[in-house]
Amino acid sequence: MSAWMKQFTLPSRSRGSYLITDTVTKELPEIKSYKVGLLNLFIQHTSCALSLNENWDEDVRADMSDTLDRIVPEAGPKGEALYRHDAEGPDDLPAHVKSALIGASVTIPIKDGKLQTGTWQGIWYLEFRAAKHSRRIVATIQGEKA
Amino acid sequence: MSAWMKQFTLPSRSRGSYLITDTVTKELPEIKSYKVGLLNLFIQHTSCALSLNENWDEDVRADMSDTLDRIVPEAGPKGEALYRHDAEGPDDLPAHVKSALIGASVTIPIKDGKLQTGTWQGIWYLEFRAAKHSRRIVATIQGEKA
Amino acid sequence: MSAWMKQFTLPSRSRGSYLITDTVTKELPEIKSYKVGLLNLFIQHTSCALSLNENWDEDVRADMSDTLDRIVPEAGPKGEALYRHDAEGPDDLPAHVKSALIGASVTIPIKDGKLQTGTWQGIWYLEFRAAKHSRRIVATIQGEKA
Repeated sequence: MSAWMKQFTLPSRSRGSYLITDTVTKELPEIKSYKVGLLNLFIQHTSCALSLNENWDEDVRADMSDTLDRIVPEAGPKGEALYRHDAEGPDDLPAHVKSALIGASVTIPIKDGKLQTGTWQGIWYLEFRAAKHSRRIVATIQGEKA
Repeated sequence: MSAWMKQFTLPSRSRGSYLITDTVTKELPEIKSYKVGLLNLFIQHTSCALSLNENWDEDVRADMSDTLDRIVPEAGPKGEALYRHDAEGPDDLPAHVKSALIGASVTIPIKDGKLQTGTWQGIWYLEFRAAKHSRRIVATIQGEKA
Repeated sequence: MSAWMKQFTLPSRSRGSYLITDTVTKELPEIKSYKVGLLNLFIQHTSCALSLNENWDEDVRADMSDTLDRIVPEAGPKGEALYRHDAEGPDDLPAHVKSALIGASVTIPIKDGKLQTGTWQGIWYLEFRAAKHSRRIVATIQGEKA
């Protein structure tokens, strides 16, 4: 078995859910050299997240962002303040909570040089801050090479 | 160290939370051959999830499904539509959000041939679609054999 | 590559979000001996969680616990009972749901003997039970030593 690591930066984005499967496979041609293994993608930030979800209809991605806004609103139903931590803007604390709910990393099996995601499963980057941010990912592969 | 992988299919289920610890250990007798390692279970779908939770009282499993329905409802409080993506039924988009919240995979340590789950910790499969679905899992073990 | 495992117990805590980065690095000096690898931290319980989040302002940790209480309340808006499983107290079932939402484990890349967490990223232990609990963690490192 061998372990391999690379860091790369995602294209800068503002609030939204983004399909990054193609970015990941382009950045990591090494996936092809593993017979059996696991890819871990780890985002080094606390107001965005990585996930696996539907890879076809972009409406799912828009609905995801809106639904998370309803689950973790910026203010209460009458506009009242909800958070102690508000110095970085009303979207900052909700972004930290969404990040905890969705998670900073995904682990994906590799077999015969291919990610073993299901037919409808894509890799998502969810940005929770309103302003554009540039996010770094650490990719680690551990496994047996072909 | 060695890496090992197997795919298997869960018994077909409709909406609910299911304890699958016994299914997993029966499908994966190889767990017994590892001295130190990690088991990754990865579900290849985007409207169900894997988790670790209470393994005793089935009421916890019923409460979990109901609570997730309240967190991600099919419609608003007055019955209003909440989602753009509705062509696959009212339970489809909520299922994608629950899948992102709970997650598609779990990683469990193995020591001396046994999963190192706590006393009350079982492996859960959560089905979020109303209709029965058959779900595939990719199991990967990496570690040192005994 | 090699695999290594250690179990340790966190200082006993009641409901709240706690930064445990220093505890983890003190318990696991072995991190320093890995050139490339992954650390998996796994909490053996179902009413608490591990996460990665902001490591600076303690208000973020207080807001996190309060926000999770709003997402998974102990009772309905008029004080009505929400859960079948209530024999272990009103905070028990909500704790199981929060545990499923946040997750029982985190996986963190290691490079050149250091955790590859981002500048603002710390390791969090979230306790969801009102009473003090003592929680066990299984730490597993897999990777290539320096």
